[in-house]
Amino acid sequence: MPGRLAGKRALVTFADSYMGPVIADRFDAEGADVVRDHSPLRDRAAVEAMVAAAGEIDILVANTAEPPHPTDVESIEDEDWAALFDKLTHPLMRVVRAVVPQMKERQSGKIIAITSAAPLRGIPKVSGYCAARGAQNAFIRAVGLELAKHNVQANAIAQNYVANNVYYPDEMITTDRFAQHLDRLVPTKRVAPSEETAELAVYLAGAYSTHVVGQVIPFAGGWATTPG
Amino acid sequence: MPGRLAGKRALVTFADSYMGPVIADRFDAEGADVVRDHSPLRDRAAVEAMVAAAGEIDILVANTAEPPHPTDVESIEDEDWAALFDKLTHPLMRVVRAVVPQMKERQSGKIIAITSAAPLRGIPKVSGYCAARGAQNAFIRAVGLELAKHNVQANAIAQNYVANNVYYPDEMITTDRFAQHLDRLVPTKRVAPSEETAELAVYLAGAYSTHVVGQVIPFAGGWATTPG
Amino acid sequence: MPGRLAGKRALVTFADSYMGPVIADRFDAEGADVVRDHSPLRDRAAVEAMVAAAGEIDILVANTAEPPHPTDVESIEDEDWAALFDKLTHPLMRVVRAVVPQMKERQSGKIIAITSAAPLRGIPKVSGYCAARGAQNAFIRAVGLELAKHNVQANAIAQNYVANNVYYPDEMITTDRFAQHLDRLVPTKRVAPSEETAELAVYLAGAYSTHVVGQVIPFAGGWATTPG
Amino acid sequence: MPGRLAGKRALVTFADSYMGPVIADRFDAEGADVVRDHSPLRDRAAVEAMVAAAGEIDILVANTAEPPHPTDVESIEDEDWAALFDKLTHPLMRVVRAVVPQMKERQSGKIIAITSAAPLRGIPKVSGYCAARGAQNAFIRAVGLELAKHNVQANAIAQNYVANNVYYPDEMITTDRFAQHLDRLVPTKRVAPSEETAELAVYLAGAYSTHVVGQVIPFAGGWATTPG
Repeated sequence: MPGRLAGKRALVTFADSYMGPVIADRFDAEGADVVRDHSPLRDRAAVEAMVAAAGEIDILVANTAEPPHPTDVESIEDEDWAALFDKLTHPLMRVVRAVVPQMKERQSGKIIAITSAAPLRGIPKVSGYCAARGAQNAFIRAVGLELAKHNVQANAIAQNYVANNVYYPDEMITTDRFAQHLDRLVPTKRVAPSEETAELAVYLAGAYSTHVVGQVIPFAGGWATTPG
Repeated sequence: MPGRLAGKRALVTFADSYMGPVIADRFDAEGADVVRDHSPLRDRAAVEAMVAAAGEIDILVANTAEPPHPTDVESIEDEDWAALFDKLTHPLMRVVRAVVPQMKERQSGKIIAITSAAPLRGIPKVSGYCAARGAQNAFIRAVGLELAKHNVQANAIAQNYVANNVYYPDEMITTDRFAQHLDRLVPTKRVAPSEETAELAVYLAGAYSTHVVGQVIPFAGGWATTPG
Repeated sequence: MPGRLAGKRALVTFADSYMGPVIADRFDAEGADVVRDHSPLRDRAAVEAMVAAAGEIDILVANTAEPPHPTDVESIEDEDWAALFDKLTHPLMRVVRAVVPQMKERQSGKIIAITSAAPLRGIPKVSGYCAARGAQNAFIRAVGLELAKHNVQANAIAQNYVANNVYYPDEMITTDRFAQHLDRLVPTKRVAPSEETAELAVYLAGAYSTHVVGQVIPFAGGWATTPG
Repeated sequence: MPGRLAGKRALVTFADSYMGPVIADRFDAEGADVVRDHSPLRDRAAVEAMVAAAGEIDILVANTAEPPHPTDVESIEDEDWAALFDKLTHPLMRVVRAVVPQMKERQSGKIIAITSAAPLRGIPKVSGYCAARGAQNAFIRAVGLELAKHNVQANAIAQNYVANNVYYPDEMITTDRFAQHLDRLVPTKRVAPSEETAELAVYLAGAYSTHVVGQVIPFAGGWATTPG
């Protein structure tokens, strides 16, 4: 049987980091032609050349990751602060900017940003990370509304408490202290398997999600239920 | 091939109204054993008997519908106001209450309420409808957090601008006036096909959505992007 | 000096319960002519007679309160569920409905509902309370948008962790267990004095808040930061 | 009579732009000792020297402004994008970072960021502005939660449709086209006078708002009711 993404080409950025590997593998299993990019998306010309080389992109998985250095707000270092925007916020804009023209021309496309639920709730001592991720979420909300009438659906998966190699290394999530943290703060009491993010991404990349645009989707085990 | 819901039994309420038909058909096509209920869910004993007769329920699709009578707030009639709670809010509680014991006992289950995005934004002249639907959304949020640790995932699809026989009859959505309304207020500029709600429900009913609990999911073509 | 509400008449409902006493006293101190109502707002005719007797009402403080009976969702009793709507949701509608005609006629008025932040976050085991308060919040959001063009500003103070005689009796908030609860869940680590709600109400009742309409204002010591 | 901010020193940044003038004047009228800063807050050392020179700061009004250059997302220029973060996001962090040590030491302080409601809703063609303002809002939410236990209250006024010299010049808001825009999109149908933001800031700067922390307050005439 054909997969749910058969005949589609998907570009996955930061393909060996955060949710890149699991999404790329899953999209491949669903029949997509997956282009895995490993660049830092740090330069306009390089990003545009990479996108041009990828050819027709039906689905962009704009995955970005950079761990925060937890610190009190008064101790934020300029270079740590800048690094978060340089590795999260600006790369997202660059790759979205580069793929939009072809999607608008074809009047079809999916943009799925993998971001964070941290800015939805606010987390002490990682205010810089919240700021850089909050910028991503706000950017995608605006872009989603802008592109909706062109039949391009842009959304963000704002996740937390999902297994991944950047924020939840095994040596962290297997400690007693972390178990207590989960018990106190996360209604599901656990870290979700990374396949769950991949399944949500398949849904958003599929044919039946045209009604979801400009949405920042909390995906965090009930930690960040959005008022509604 | 087996469908994505093979081996699961799903109870769909209000099965011939609102999103009931399309979800029941789609779950059936995905291999679920679908029990279609057509009762108004208006009495505790009747609801509990119906649920008992349905046997093991893996998935509850708590679909409810009742059209509002648009009116200025000062002209709300007591009986119209009461009808909205009697046909939307209280039925939802009754059917959820009835299915929870077996789900908790099996430590497994999915509850998907089909509600409305109207209370997320607020709509003048349908304040009673917003209130009754807002009660549903708030109820599901609390229940979702309560049941999360029992491996029961409860969420609401808070939709608007999706085709259905209650709120968007064909004779309404084909008018010029409605086209102008869509153009002004809905970023996607259209009413989504009902199959899109069904697909989102399949996702929520499936094995890869355990991380989504207590969520009121805006599903409205960008009309109600939830801040995040 | 004249108070900030000099020359205004304010109707405060449930005047001896929840936030009624502190708001009535404070509005009085700010120069308002305060009408204290002690009725349960349980009947249309009685509410309308009470409002008619109050004369010209510039400010409605729609204060309502009813403690929840904490229970698992499957153990909700019909009469407890109904009581929450009968004592919170429906009374709010009745008194708002009764005061709106005169406010629209004068093209001027303030409606301040004192509700709860519980439905914003969702709280396990009080799902009925969340539902009834969620209905209030959704109602006020819709009414606020409806009345905005008539220069009537309707908003809700959705509070939690503020001292009051209904939800936080002294014998509760002075226990060690409650101190631990605050330490874990409330960023400010304390229950706010009731005067703080009164001050927010004075702001909303005053001349410089015409830009705030249909807003459900989280007021909960950081427990319910609304995404934005 | 003494003003409501008598005995307090307030630092107002961007004092001749956006909401700076009206807030500075109003705080002065309320008895505060107002320090008006006109620097771009573009360098750590300069910001810290300015804050040191200001002495004991009880209230920081972190006002920042930079007009967006409306453009489709695919036409964003790197320098325009960078300018928004350089003039909005990073300056906010710098001045907050500089005042926090003295506020924590005194276990007392108020931080009021004047930001924008644009990222709450999402606005097509100003996605960069939404991103930079969204970063500010997310930053303040995290900082507010972090500082709450130190009796420092940090919040953001996320405004739109308030008169000011940067975003709503008189020649714009007096056109027919703008009147139509207001009629379609803003429930109050008007641009609020700038004094309203000043009054909200006085409330947040005062003694009775300790329960409001980490909040991004929509202040936009009902254009951006936050779900709740």
